[in-house]
Amino acid sequence: MSDYLARTTHILRRIDELAAISEDATGATVTRRFGTPAFVRGRDLVQRWFEAAGLEVRLDGIGNLRGRLASQRPGAKTFVLASHIDTVVNAGKYDGPLGVLMGLDLVERISQQGIALPFHIELMAFSDEEGVRFHTTYLGSKVVTGAFEPTLLQRADADGITLAQAIAEMGGNAATLATDALPADEWLGYFELHIEQGPVLWDNKVPIALVTAIAGQQRVELTWQGMAGHAGTVPMAMRQDALAATAEFVLAAEAFALGHGRGLVATVGQLRIPYAASNVIPGQVVHSFDLRSPDADQLAAAYAELQAEAKAIATRRGLDLDWQLVQYTAPVACDLGLNRLLGQAIAASGHAVVGLVSGAGHDAVPASAVAPATMAFIRCYKGISHNPLENVEAADVAAALEVAERFLLELKIKNEELKMA
Amino acid sequence: MSDYLARTTHILRRIDELAAISEDATGATVTRRFGTPAFVRGRDLVQRWFEAAGLEVRLDGIGNLRGRLASQRPGAKTFVLASHIDTVVNAGKYDGPLGVLMGLDLVERISQQGIALPFHIELMAFSDEEGVRFHTTYLGSKVVTGAFEPTLLQRADADGITLAQAIAEMGGNAATLATDALPADEWLGYFELHIEQGPVLWDNKVPIALVTAIAGQQRVELTWQGMAGHAGTVPMAMRQDALAATAEFVLAAEAFALGHGRGLVATVGQLRIPYAASNVIPGQVVHSFDLRSPDADQLAAAYAELQAEAKAIATRRGLDLDWQLVQYTAPVACDLGLNRLLGQAIAASGHAVVGLVSGAGHDAVPASAVAPATMAFIRCYKGISHNPLENVEAADVAAALEVAERFLLELKIKNEELKMA
Repeated sequence: MSDYLARTTHILRRIDELAAISEDATGATVTRRFGTPAFVRGRDLVQRWFEAAGLEVRLDGIGNLRGRLASQRPGAKTFVLASHIDTVVNAGKYDGPLGVLMGLDLVERISQQGIALPFHIELMAFSDEEGVRFHTTYLGSKVVTGAFEPTLLQRADADGITLAQAIAEMGGNAATLATDALPADEWLGYFELHIEQGPVLWDNKVPIALVTAIAGQQRVELTWQGMAGHAGTVPMAMRQDALAATAEFVLAAEAFALGHGRGLVATVGQLRIPYAASNVIPGQVVHSFDLRSPDADQLAAAYAELQAEAKAIATRRGLDLDWQLVQYTAPVACDLGLNRLLGQAIAASGHAVVGLVSGAGHDAVPASAVAPATMAFIRCYKGISHNPLENVEAADVAAALEVAERFLLELKIKNEELKMA
Repeated sequence: MSDYLARTTHILRRIDELAAISEDATGATVTRRFGTPAFVRGRDLVQRWFEAAGLEVRLDGIGNLRGRLASQRPGAKTFVLASHIDTVVNAGKYDGPLGVLMGLDLVERISQQGIALPFHIELMAFSDEEGVRFHTTYLGSKVVTGAFEPTLLQRADADGITLAQAIAEMGGNAATLATDALPADEWLGYFELHIEQGPVLWDNKVPIALVTAIAGQQRVELTWQGMAGHAGTVPMAMRQDALAATAEFVLAAEAFALGHGRGLVATVGQLRIPYAASNVIPGQVVHSFDLRSPDADQLAAAYAELQAEAKAIATRRGLDLDWQLVQYTAPVACDLGLNRLLGQAIAASGHAVVGLVSGAGHDAVPASAVAPATMAFIRCYKGISHNPLENVEAADVAAALEVAERFLLELKIKNEELKMA
């Protein structure tokens, strides 16, 4: 067994141990939403591992677990290795924890080998990336990057508990959120290891990829208003069927995205027909529309074109259309310099260098606002994620561990050179 | 004011009086479901009107109100004039009661004028046509035509009350249901006046139409099984999106029905995406499909063709499809002889003779199994029905009253001729 595979076995054992801690008392499923007792118990376990590795450990106000391996070099900056330990409901075991526990292995190894780095490493286990409980993502990394908006504290979960109350209940401290940020001039960079959560690596039989960009997202709610009517008595040519209009839009969006390459994706995921009955022509349909692209110009153009298409469908069919933008997130390009190092590490480890766009959001989005940031994606079983079937091959984790270790050592060399120059 | 308009004013006043009796205690909306106290109070009112008109009145086991104007001729058969007095929830005032109270006016006028008919008239106010409470239509007319299935007595409503209990509670008698049928050899025919419940007459500016057929109906439940996935991470070309497949089917069914003339209608009215989320590609969609045609061959061909189309969509997209037939009702052709008389009466009253297919079901469906049956449709406001906005013009009711009176007198003459021949 290679050294990396042996370390991987240890990492995967820890993943299993952490996954056994769940809001679901039976332990049959993994659910650890931000601030819940299960989340705190899970974080306690990870904190003991951080401490055992010899890191300087602290919890910040929002409940992020932060472990520091300090450099002795005067004026050293901080390189952040991170992922999250909160989960969605009925989650997989790897989305988040894999990046944290691989990071811990890497930092522990550097520490044990007595390697003197020209930068501090801060290993972060973010308390909320998924945003399941308060319907707002990146709470943990927003605090670390200074992007946390205090108005969020008044936001309530489904039980009416505010974020401020949740922070107090979990032993956090809302008063320190502003000062918990790592000041922008102290950041050297940000790196995250994460499962792909998509099928591209699986399909192409590649274990690891560097992430070139994180897609921007437009989320829209459409309401088509036609005329309800009796399914038996209204002739086809006299109908204003809101579902037929919706069907045209669904196919138009699909065809448009298919015609514009891999980067653009369009999805109608939620759809509701108020007062639906099998014998009533749908008078109204309300549905979501999720449009993503790594290219801001492409995203804006697709948005405008599909909005115009929707209006044309409504006009042609004699319906009213309400088009409400619910959310906009700008695309983020990952750092070219870090990706050059990462690509070298991938190639040196014997793998094809593949660049992927992340269609899902990650903590690298807020991080990229204050520092050079990038990610590596690890192949996962059939691309399945947010699902108990989520899985990774040990060999792929070992490959990623090797890549990440080379990457950090390249980063060390590059920063030593910079300091000498 | 014409005589017919004066009689119409009286009929519409009664409609308003009946509509004030509702399960909704405020009286703001009209709801009188089969067997409810409001239904019984409404029927009591109509019974007093039947009795005041001099009819021989009785209630049968299922709670139909039946008023007889007997002929003196030996061996006379029975012509049934009918509609229903139960309603859907939050109903209009005219769907059902208009036909009953127009029929009452016609019978009362014949009686007052001492016209000797060669047939009995039995005016029937059916207790359940809508089928809202027990999810099975035509309970009243099934009893009258001998088509009632005793197993229905064990069917329960939403509160767990069986039909047998409901009959007992409303003072009916389940023991007489078999003998309450009018024997098949005693039927002369069946005629019903009803609002169109569709927009064709409104759109064509015609007050009345004869009904040539009542559409047959295939009701199907489709389940498309694809693969759920993250809306951001699964490239368009790798998706098995169950909603996109559904959208193709919705448009294929619409295009097919549009291409096959007025008689064929196709509707997807209910649609559900289990575990829907705006950022999840729909892995499964379950939806209804309602297909109707007055032509049994056309209905069967359309059914087969659209089922094949659905399977082709599923195959092309790599989805599984489950296609479940939920209900089949055969089309019913209205009686040509009665329609010849009805057409003459419409023409003699100065209106264009228009034939319509009924896309909605009516009590004429069970009636047609035992007797020549037809209907006349009266224009309603914008075709709106099963809705408090349901409305009719007094002039249209007066026109229909004139037509129906001519029709009954033509029927009298024709039957006298037959007897003499």
